[in-house]
Amino acid sequence: MKINNKNFQTIWYTKDENAVKIINQNKLPHNLEIITLNTVDDVVVAIKEMKVRGAPLIGCAGAFGVYLSCLKSPLKEDINKDCENLIVSRPTAVNLKWAVNRVKNIILNLPESERTTNALKEALLIVDSDVKNCQLIGEHGSKIIQNISEQKQSIVNVLTHCNAGWLATVDWGTATSPIYFSKNKGINLHVWVDETRPRLQGAHLTSFELNNEEVDNTIISDNTGGYLMLNKKVDICIIGADRIMSNGDVINKIGTYEKALAAYANNIPFYVAAPTSTIDFSKTSTEDIAIEERSSAEMNIVSGIQNGEIHNINIYPIHSKSYNIAFDITPSKYITGLICEFGLFDCNKTSFEKIKTFI
Amino acid sequence: MKINNKNFQTIWYTKDENAVKIINQNKLPHNLEIITLNTVDDVVVAIKEMKVRGAPLIGCAGAFGVYLSCLKSPLKEDINKDCENLIVSRPTAVNLKWAVNRVKNIILNLPESERTTNALKEALLIVDSDVKNCQLIGEHGSKIIQNISEQKQSIVNVLTHCNAGWLATVDWGTATSPIYFSKNKGINLHVWVDETRPRLQGAHLTSFELNNEEVDNTIISDNTGGYLMLNKKVDICIIGADRIMSNGDVINKIGTYEKALAAYANNIPFYVAAPTSTIDFSKTSTEDIAIEERSSAEMNIVSGIQNGEIHNINIYPIHSKSYNIAFDITPSKYITGLICEFGLFDCNKTSFEKIKTFI
Repeated sequence: MKINNKNFQTIWYTKDENAVKIINQNKLPHNLEIITLNTVDDVVVAIKEMKVRGAPLIGCAGAFGVYLSCLKSPLKEDINKDCENLIVSRPTAVNLKWAVNRVKNIILNLPESERTTNALKEALLIVDSDVKNCQLIGEHGSKIIQNISEQKQSIVNVLTHCNAGWLATVDWGTATSPIYFSKNKGINLHVWVDETRPRLQGAHLTSFELNNEEVDNTIISDNTGGYLMLNKKVDICIIGADRIMSNGDVINKIGTYEKALAAYANNIPFYVAAPTSTIDFSKTSTEDIAIEERSSAEMNIVSGIQNGEIHNINIYPIHSKSYNIAFDITPSKYITGLICEFGLFDCNKTSFEKIKTFI
Repeated sequence: MKINNKNFQTIWYTKDENAVKIINQNKLPHNLEIITLNTVDDVVVAIKEMKVRGAPLIGCAGAFGVYLSCLKSPLKEDINKDCENLIVSRPTAVNLKWAVNRVKNIILNLPESERTTNALKEALLIVDSDVKNCQLIGEHGSKIIQNISEQKQSIVNVLTHCNAGWLATVDWGTATSPIYFSKNKGINLHVWVDETRPRLQGAHLTSFELNNEEVDNTIISDNTGGYLMLNKKVDICIIGADRIMSNGDVINKIGTYEKALAAYANNIPFYVAAPTSTIDFSKTSTEDIAIEERSSAEMNIVSGIQNGEIHNINIYPIHSKSYNIAFDITPSKYITGLICEFGLFDCNKTSFEKIKTFI
């Protein structure tokens, strides 16, 4: 997708440097910085510090991480250790674990001399399939928006939370892909973008990418969605997911649960858009999932521009404590459906058994 | 209540200067600035720019405004004009209109020569009764917290939104008064403070005042309350109100509705604490109430400290639009009860008919 009218993906392999390039998402929206990841440790740091973020994208970064690990040493114990470091670099999203294990399991069955080449090959396949899955999500999801548009015969208002946009994937996005596909079909739509405190990924990333794709959007405080829904100013909510449990409960950015409750109370469809790699078929309950608690500094330090310069200011009173839990859990009953690469499904156990047969 | 161990009220009349003093709340928590309001226009500006804010406090400011208007001219047409300017300076909270009209109606029945003295007398009575009402709210509300404490036999977690603290009144606060009374009774409690974007009154004012009163509190993003409630980390929600309709629907800071939905879904008691001057007995529906839309600059410009200096930074991407609606409406069915100066009541029409007989 575009930044300043130039096409980008969020992550790519560069043969010349035999390294991985990413857009440093911590610098957006104020600066576009491309950085190079030369080692698996660079990847771990990039994931931890959220230079790359978004469940599908950190999966792809993790896959490249396994390749960079092989470059350093193709020995089983070294690869295992690096893979472990990659997986724990962010604990909640399942795509990271899924992608790292997928590459690892393939290459550890091969002789050492073939591991590096095949790790790269597999990582590139994961990147390619992420792009394709997001396109399919866009195709399937845009039909839902099209239906609303045809029934309503006026502008469709979509609400989204956090950034499940192309910046959270390789391209197109999950929650935003149906929006981009709808726009390309000529559907008249507008997006309410939740700021998404504390890291403001909605304001910093989603509004930024929608601006760059010329999709009409308005930033709202995270307090506002319920009011808009009660006042019939939202036609559909579409969000991403970091991990979907086998019972259909959805772990996603903190605040998702409150939006789902508001949508439910006001009979507004609430969709989760995610590739099936986000489904954790092994877990029936969220009880043993680590919900990541991040540094409280992400709450009281806010970054922005004054007179053309970036400042990082402290917005809290001295001595105030804060609690920064990154994700919440939305029970399956509040979710209208899952938009994945195979189409539209109910978000529950029975439905996931069917999905399993497609994978 | 205390700031840096010194007792303050938010507003007071000073005989020496024949003027009104306020704490400039736009400068908190980083600076304590006392400013003087010499004219009714000073009062209008202070209310509009939210140097004073909070439904009960802007009522008191409005009452003093009528006095300052009399000082300028005791003529009926001049007073009426100033009162109109005061009332429209913020459209949603009903206390402002209530207090201004109360003073106006008394003095316009008096000869011109007696208006000024009596306006001051009535404004001081309103201030006094605000303090007393808040104390009574504290007494009544603390019984609810005490009950929870006795049943739970461990720390009581209170969640509050925005600032319905002493900084929103003259002293004690509405939603915080039961907290302060509980603390004084020796009840073990902890407060979750919603940041309350866009103006961050929770972080800037509520956490600040709780710190100064040594009440254990933790700031959370506005996305977090639902997660905490689902995880049984909230025992009770107490919020303030800007206007309570005669059917029990509550207009309060944007975001209140989403907290109420989350509390309802998780069987957590959700109380509104407000003096009866907040009840608009004349309105049965919220349909013809102006819900204030404020400048979008309040959303993208954030104020804070870097290296000891205040900076005002822009946190949004260029070209991004935003929508800043200040209040929302919580339907009566989500509200467990109203804590007012007369005790604890259901928040509905029948109950309000009873309250009317006490006023």
